[in-house]
Amino acid sequence: MEETFVPFRGIKNDIKGRLLCYKQDWIGGFRAGIRILAPTTYVFFASAIPVISFGEQLERNTDGTLTAVQTLASTALCGIIHSVLGGQPLLILGVAEPTVLMYTFMFNFAKDRKDLGQKLFLAWTGWVCVWTALLLFLLAILGACSIINRFTRLAGELFGLLIAMLFMQQAIRGVVEEFGIPQRENSNQTALQPAWRFGNGMFALVLSFGLLFTALRSRKARSWRYGTGWLRGLIADYGVPLMVLLWTAVSYIPTHDVPRGIPRRLFSPNPWSPGAYSNWTVIKEMLNVPPLYIVGAFIPATMIAVLYYFDHSVASQLAQQKEFNLKKPASYHYDLLLLGFLVILCGLFGIPPSNGVIPQSPMHTKSLATLKHQLLRNKLVATARKSIRKNSNLSQLYRNMQQAYNEMQTPLVYQFPSALGLKELKESTIQLASRTGYIDAPVDETIFDVDKDIDDLLPVEVKEQRLSNLLQALMVGGCVAAMPLLKKIPTSVLWGYFAFMAIESLPGNQFWERILLLFTAPSRRYKVLEENHATFIETVPFKTIAMFTTFQTVYLLLCFGITWIPIAGVLFPLLIMLLVPVRQYFLPKFFKGAHLQDLDVAEYEEASAIFEDQDQQARITSIDGGEILDEIITRSRGEIRHRHSPKVTSSTPSDDIKPYNSPQLSERACSPRVSQLRMETSPWVTGKGLQSKQTPSPGPSTLGQSSHAPSSC
Amino acid sequence: MEETFVPFRGIKNDIKGRLLCYKQDWIGGFRAGIRILAPTTYVFFASAIPVISFGEQLERNTDGTLTAVQTLASTALCGIIHSVLGGQPLLILGVAEPTVLMYTFMFNFAKDRKDLGQKLFLAWTGWVCVWTALLLFLLAILGACSIINRFTRLAGELFGLLIAMLFMQQAIRGVVEEFGIPQRENSNQTALQPAWRFGNGMFALVLSFGLLFTALRSRKARSWRYGTGWLRGLIADYGVPLMVLLWTAVSYIPTHDVPRGIPRRLFSPNPWSPGAYSNWTVIKEMLNVPPLYIVGAFIPATMIAVLYYFDHSVASQLAQQKEFNLKKPASYHYDLLLLGFLVILCGLFGIPPSNGVIPQSPMHTKSLATLKHQLLRNKLVATARKSIRKNSNLSQLYRNMQQAYNEMQTPLVYQFPSALGLKELKESTIQLASRTGYIDAPVDETIFDVDKDIDDLLPVEVKEQRLSNLLQALMVGGCVAAMPLLKKIPTSVLWGYFAFMAIESLPGNQFWERILLLFTAPSRRYKVLEENHATFIETVPFKTIAMFTTFQTVYLLLCFGITWIPIAGVLFPLLIMLLVPVRQYFLPKFFKGAHLQDLDVAEYEEASAIFEDQDQQARITSIDGGEILDEIITRSRGEIRHRHSPKVTSSTPSDDIKPYNSPQLSERACSPRVSQLRMETSPWVTGKGLQSKQTPSPGPSTLGQSSHAPSSC
Repeated sequence: MEETFVPFRGIKNDIKGRLLCYKQDWIGGFRAGIRILAPTTYVFFASAIPVISFGEQLERNTDGTLTAVQTLASTALCGIIHSVLGGQPLLILGVAEPTVLMYTFMFNFAKDRKDLGQKLFLAWTGWVCVWTALLLFLLAILGACSIINRFTRLAGELFGLLIAMLFMQQAIRGVVEEFGIPQRENSNQTALQPAWRFGNGMFALVLSFGLLFTALRSRKARSWRYGTGWLRGLIADYGVPLMVLLWTAVSYIPTHDVPRGIPRRLFSPNPWSPGAYSNWTVIKEMLNVPPLYIVGAFIPATMIAVLYYFDHSVASQLAQQKEFNLKKPASYHYDLLLLGFLVILCGLFGIPPSNGVIPQSPMHTKSLATLKHQLLRNKLVATARKSIRKNSNLSQLYRNMQQAYNEMQTPLVYQFPSALGLKELKESTIQLASRTGYIDAPVDETIFDVDKDIDDLLPVEVKEQRLSNLLQALMVGGCVAAMPLLKKIPTSVLWGYFAFMAIESLPGNQFWERILLLFTAPSRRYKVLEENHATFIETVPFKTIAMFTTFQTVYLLLCFGITWIPIAGVLFPLLIMLLVPVRQYFLPKFFKGAHLQDLDVAEYEEASAIFEDQDQQARITSIDGGEILDEIITRSRGEIRHRHSPKVTSSTPSDDIKPYNSPQLSERACSPRVSQLRMETSPWVTGKGLQSKQTPSPGPSTLGQSSHAPSSC
Repeated sequence: MEETFVPFRGIKNDIKGRLLCYKQDWIGGFRAGIRILAPTTYVFFASAIPVISFGEQLERNTDGTLTAVQTLASTALCGIIHSVLGGQPLLILGVAEPTVLMYTFMFNFAKDRKDLGQKLFLAWTGWVCVWTALLLFLLAILGACSIINRFTRLAGELFGLLIAMLFMQQAIRGVVEEFGIPQRENSNQTALQPAWRFGNGMFALVLSFGLLFTALRSRKARSWRYGTGWLRGLIADYGVPLMVLLWTAVSYIPTHDVPRGIPRRLFSPNPWSPGAYSNWTVIKEMLNVPPLYIVGAFIPATMIAVLYYFDHSVASQLAQQKEFNLKKPASYHYDLLLLGFLVILCGLFGIPPSNGVIPQSPMHTKSLATLKHQLLRNKLVATARKSIRKNSNLSQLYRNMQQAYNEMQTPLVYQFPSALGLKELKESTIQLASRTGYIDAPVDETIFDVDKDIDDLLPVEVKEQRLSNLLQALMVGGCVAAMPLLKKIPTSVLWGYFAFMAIESLPGNQFWERILLLFTAPSRRYKVLEENHATFIETVPFKTIAMFTTFQTVYLLLCFGITWIPIAGVLFPLLIMLLVPVRQYFLPKFFKGAHLQDLDVAEYEEASAIFEDQDQQARITSIDGGEILDEIITRSRGEIRHRHSPKVTSSTPSDDIKPYNSPQLSERACSPRVSQLRMETSPWVTGKGLQSKQTPSPGPSTLGQSSHAPSSC
């Protein structure tokens, strides 16, 4: 994106781009049929469950002024409006943890002021929202999102890890609180006697760890060895909601002698109970707020505006990473403008506003990539089977498949007529055909393995549409009505789910992977190279990686620490935004430019495993179906890894290299020592274990994997 | 072993063989130094913990007549005597679950007889022991152990799985009982109020699953990526006892408001408390038993004799599998004779007798193999380093290492001067040297990687000695004195440990692996072939495997079911012994001889992974140190797998094979389709996923792995 600050230009471009594909956004969604429900439910649960428990958290923190009904209402309202009128429909909106923190800070400030107090708290936040919205309008109009490219991994991943820490903190705090007496309860109840509280706490441990463990397992169901394919697929797609159901059912097992209230379940007023609507008339009270506080509301508003500007843009950015091969345009400016309207709307209704959320937004894109993969796959398999039945030869087969593939592509007006598609298939098909002399013979499944080969070939594509977003928002809205059912979920299951979300968001976060690297025993670091890994591991000295990571960790802990400070905590969004100039002006003084670029590349490039010829191919061929996608896409973070051959982007630090004085270098290229040779370009790996590794000379490349095959020795 | 039934010949041979190495059995043990403590502690815990909880179980079942003091005393006494006077010192003795079952059956019989009752129960079991011992003497003298070769996998593995089921049953029953009121307790205690019982049960779930999960994880510590090598080694060696300590510590965390007795802890009288010795004078009461019951004692005695004959021999057999490369002779007959004496001794003392136990005995051998590996490795690494410093060339290096290796070998009188040793090293060293022209050049670590290559070369050997067995038995004896400390262990941790033992005994049990195979989705069965697998998977049709496994499962459930029948349960050992004739005379009528032989090979041979050139080597080179041994030896069962290339031992059933009509078969040998070709020799694998697999032509073989390299295309 060019950095243009001409007023309104960004918004205009965004609207123009999205209008061109608006109709197709809906048609495409409906064409996907019933399968759209898999990503919808997945995102719905990922969105609704945190929002419900944020509601519970807010209720405790605001003495019941705000509850889960309000957070759900905000999420549903903003979600529906954004999915219909918003720019980027991949972006998921919701009440987020930072919002809860800000509202808590504001409540603690307001409740002690005599002329404000709990009564005018919502009216005052209404003013905060008005100011926030004005600031957001300003930012959107002036094109502030143009600098989105300066939001590098450094800031984005730090923010991602901060969110994960907040989720995990909530999980731990929640479980610990299960042993105590909840504030709102009458402490004379049977269930709150010390004995039952102990039992309740222990039961909470069982339920939350049970959910965490089974949910993590179920996400990997596609690679299970047991059970039929559809069952594995079902568990992988719907495993997390199923596990919430399962552990809720388990929570009903102990009935004998156990009093009501054990385990504790979700608490929220029903939306139709008296008082639940008392704060929907906030707009009338806004004029009762003393003028000083109306002006003062500008201070938290700047923080929230900074937070939303950053959070909304980063969530959108993570949902639209280059690796997803999205075909429809981004819409940062327009979405920020819309967010401004949504914030005003929420402020006037007295509900906390929603914004783009991490990790749900990238989770959404990823689940839509899985959906698209399945749709494409089914179509191509059917086509290939039909061709084989008709005794087509390989080139006919290829043409038929390419045609089917093209039919599945959205004909977008603004798009170049690209050479996209099954390029690899063509190459490898022709290669195979000419080698085997089969080019004119009828294809059978021994030559072209329909199930397998198609899976390997399909590019990553995303089913970009608005339906799943709208449906999940409607389902969140439905939660308000389904409150009596939701209240059956034990709170401990929620805490387990929080821990699950935190853990699921870690893989793919390079910051996290660098932290792990610091704890990896030096003698085992070579193992990292055997997997797909980021380029910096080969190009940046270990010491530099350690320094950079330590700096980032300290900064993270600082951000986390500041959220604990009672009222100054309101400043934490500033600290995160501060990372942008820190990265641009401060860090280059301490790190070499090339190293910094490798450690903090905006476009995420990955080196494939050093030994891809052996491991990778063995691995790829041993997995099937959706598993491949699971492998390619780092799980919930939604980042897709490129598989490039190792590429040296910064100069190899020569001081660390022992020159390799082999008299027979040419022979070595195919010898067991070749891996060692390659290892030594990596300055810090004590690759002892690798010296006896064998790099076999390549056999004929497998169909569809020709691009990975090493050059012949 | 030849089948000779000449009286006393078997015993004489055994004594002669073991006497020759008796002195070395002790010297070898002491030479191992402090490291002997790793296998000792490992086996001690595996032995003591079940014995303690069997004691608790017996106490409940016999209304307090027998307690953990008695079971520990028996285990220690028999263990000490066997480790000093016994034939095979790898065999671990202990009070086993079947003995507990038999004693329970006998108690239930005795307590209802007016002229016997609880008072004379131990005296009566004294008679049972006398009869049992006489029968064991008879069996030992007549050479009954000669037919040990007819105890095929069928019976041994079924028995192993039965033991695992009994362990698991105890684990589940134990956890469930944590929610109830224990029989012996005064139900008015605070800790037994419904509320606290609920809390206690939930806490028990946390503790037992915590132990199970962490213990299973800690066993794999050697392959962890984090932490230093010695820490990983420590956790892998001592992880299970450490976890028992850890979870016992955790059980002390809730102190606030929680009454005594939560969680429940081990219950056992201290050995010095009054009454604990009341039954040590059983011998005086034995004459008070009515003559009819003295004669009647012969009936349970036959069952126990059959049980011990089978259990003792199978445990010994599993501890001495061929794959361990043991150098010292077996001693089945003499050990059975000694067992007879031990049974009399225990009977007269009024304590339940001990016999050879599964899975502890093979666990013992395996941990000694790990020990020997470490000792050999340290010596050879030191030698190699020394040679390299002296600028030796490759052949000198080889000679030095061979010499060091020979020094580590026990010079046994009866042993052939064998060509044992580092044969592979020699071959690969010379091969490498002649290829690279380095034969006279000084070796450096780029040519011979000391740490890595030595690990790959070392043969599996076992530190055969008596010290670890004696020490573990003494430590079990020490438990009687340490009872006040042991009582701090929560019972729920024990249940977790039971589940751990059951799960740890499964891998390597072909019966179990076949059960898993039945549940593997047909489309995923090819994955089994990618790992090391038993030969039968390639040679026996799936239908036959399924039939055979179903038969075995039904038989297992029958054996398990019979243990539930109140008094007839005493017959269950007969059912297991019956498997020997069933296998020999009945099964051949339903299964082809060749299939039966493959499914039930006495000597356990394994085919290596079909794609060993890719996966295996990648895997082997990516692990180090003790990990390799962990890989080679199936974990606790103690079975070592051979890595042969796939070998067709029975005729391939031709009716299931689709002939492969390729006009270019010779080219295919190096083509991507070669795997498919090989797959089709396996009649039942629907190896779809394999068709696009790539078999690279082999590069030069890695040092030390030459024997795995496929022949050149």
